[in-house]
Amino acid sequence: MNAVTGPLESALAELLERFHAAEAVALGRAISLVENERPGFEDFLHEVLRVGPSAARIGFTGPPGAGKSSLLSVVATIWRTRNEQLGVVAVDPTSPYSGGALLGDRIRMSDLATDPGIFIRSMATRGSLGGLATTTKEVIDLMDAFGFDRVLVETVGVGQTQIEITAAADTVIVVLVPESGDAIQAMKAGLMEIADIFVVNKADRPGADRLVKDLRQGLHLRVGTVLESEPVYHGLDLDRIRRKESGEEFKGPGWSPPVLSTVAQSGEGVEHLMDMIEAHRSWLEESGELEERRRARGKVRIQDVVDRELRRTAWHSDALLAVLDQGLDRIQKGKDTPYSVAWDIVNRLLR
Amino acid sequence: MNAVTGPLESALAELLERFHAAEAVALGRAISLVENERPGFEDFLHEVLRVGPSAARIGFTGPPGAGKSSLLSVVATIWRTRNEQLGVVAVDPTSPYSGGALLGDRIRMSDLATDPGIFIRSMATRGSLGGLATTTKEVIDLMDAFGFDRVLVETVGVGQTQIEITAAADTVIVVLVPESGDAIQAMKAGLMEIADIFVVNKADRPGADRLVKDLRQGLHLRVGTVLESEPVYHGLDLDRIRRKESGEEFKGPGWSPPVLSTVAQSGEGVEHLMDMIEAHRSWLEESGELEERRRARGKVRIQDVVDRELRRTAWHSDALLAVLDQGLDRIQKGKDTPYSVAWDIVNRLLR
Repeated sequence: MNAVTGPLESALAELLERFHAAEAVALGRAISLVENERPGFEDFLHEVLRVGPSAARIGFTGPPGAGKSSLLSVVATIWRTRNEQLGVVAVDPTSPYSGGALLGDRIRMSDLATDPGIFIRSMATRGSLGGLATTTKEVIDLMDAFGFDRVLVETVGVGQTQIEITAAADTVIVVLVPESGDAIQAMKAGLMEIADIFVVNKADRPGADRLVKDLRQGLHLRVGTVLESEPVYHGLDLDRIRRKESGEEFKGPGWSPPVLSTVAQSGEGVEHLMDMIEAHRSWLEESGELEERRRARGKVRIQDVVDRELRRTAWHSDALLAVLDQGLDRIQKGKDTPYSVAWDIVNRLLR
Repeated sequence: MNAVTGPLESALAELLERFHAAEAVALGRAISLVENERPGFEDFLHEVLRVGPSAARIGFTGPPGAGKSSLLSVVATIWRTRNEQLGVVAVDPTSPYSGGALLGDRIRMSDLATDPGIFIRSMATRGSLGGLATTTKEVIDLMDAFGFDRVLVETVGVGQTQIEITAAADTVIVVLVPESGDAIQAMKAGLMEIADIFVVNKADRPGADRLVKDLRQGLHLRVGTVLESEPVYHGLDLDRIRRKESGEEFKGPGWSPPVLSTVAQSGEGVEHLMDMIEAHRSWLEESGELEERRRARGKVRIQDVVDRELRRTAWHSDALLAVLDQGLDRIQKGKDTPYSVAWDIVNRLLR
């Protein structure tokens, strides 16, 4: 196993030094190291994460075409005028076959791409069956540890990717447009539960006021209700059980998600959005919710890393692969089932 | 661990007996047992799967609104007139929050719902982060073992759910409509790789001929080309590596996916589709591809069950949960990172 057994291998130690010296090139290399799960990447993350998180992590999610990238670009540009250092992670759902990222939205960020105070990384979701890959969350951690004031995460909201952003961001902004459907659809998609701030973008289009009103009503209905079925994150079942036992809800009390209107193109409503982002940050810090969320994130990460490590141990062992192959032969001959073979392998693995 | 340590507990032994006697009620109960992962469900599956697969497993996938359910209903009705016994598993993508299945399409199957020769089960994808849940595949196995001539699986094609159907069905039918986009989108979505048969349904609408032609051209382009990036199934990485090493492609040679036109409403083209399903079955059996696919399926199942078992062992152990909690405290105090805690847990787990 790829454990912390001693000092980093010398090339990684040098990379770490340059990373700590805030060299952008070192951040890029560190991201590649992690993305490709090259030898020592977890040791590197361990070293980097010795200093806890400090960046404000802000997630932008919503359906394709809602203008997430435009909105992100506008707020990022304003933060840059205030000299804030920014990291951006844009997650693209891709065909598991083509492996390529859809670049459409990215191109619109090109004004920012030449600014040395902002570091943009586009990531494919390739290889991950839905949800945000552990790797993606690790890249967000790298950006945080690198020293950015804010790390902005953009995910195209497609099913669970949208939901999982809560496991990566402190503040989740759900961006909708009048065309993206009504409040009932938003409720069905679980957006009421994940949004810290709702933004109805392209608010100059017909139907915007109606959507704002319906979302507010939908949120109002939610207050005080206990969700019938709780979200299930991979590895978060324990949390769920505990919340159920204690009667807590997922979101801490005291924050009612505002529903804002923006027109990213003209900048209308953007300052208000930025004020609400700050207000949410203050609430997070004062209420203790930030610490809660970071702890929940730590738990998810531990479970993810354990699961990844267990899988790797199981399926990179020649001895176990031989057991697997022989098992498949015996299944074909009707002498075994996948279950008896699986049990054999588990018994060989565990203490 | 929940291993095969001896005879089934008596209630399950009785259920098994009634299952083998082909009582529909027993099938329903067995499905509930598996769906809810109640104690002994894997032992039950082990017993049931001692007899290998025999049903023809036929998957229908495609975008929402393509008419998959209608098409499935039409072919199922014809097979029923030939007195074939049919199992149907309909998989719905659902909000991870609401937990409920979208029933729209299901209702259209109501003509068949009263026929005792067909057993329909609608399943939510709840809890699974994309892809077909292991549970869903286990239910398909149950239907196969119950003795149906065919098991029909319908999945709404949303990202990887669509792809994963290849891990559950022998014959994958991709259903498109003129409105569902062009051949390039289909290629991007990886449909060229998974389809054994393409169906352009609602072929009386404008654009149908064009889509048929484009799909054929797209398929033609594919012949002889090696995919640049191979599909990654959870747990199938080994296969991928081996295929890459040996230069094999995923699909065996000798079958060119036909592109058919149907109008499910009027029945136009349906007989032709059924002929092609039979032709594909013959090819599967004669080429050895069926055995290959079943073996690949067995491998995925073993890996899924091992991973599930490892996770369960890790996160249901009070001792390890205590390690996790203490680790979170140490992380908060800056004395540990998620990685050092994870390594501690893995070292405690593994031999």
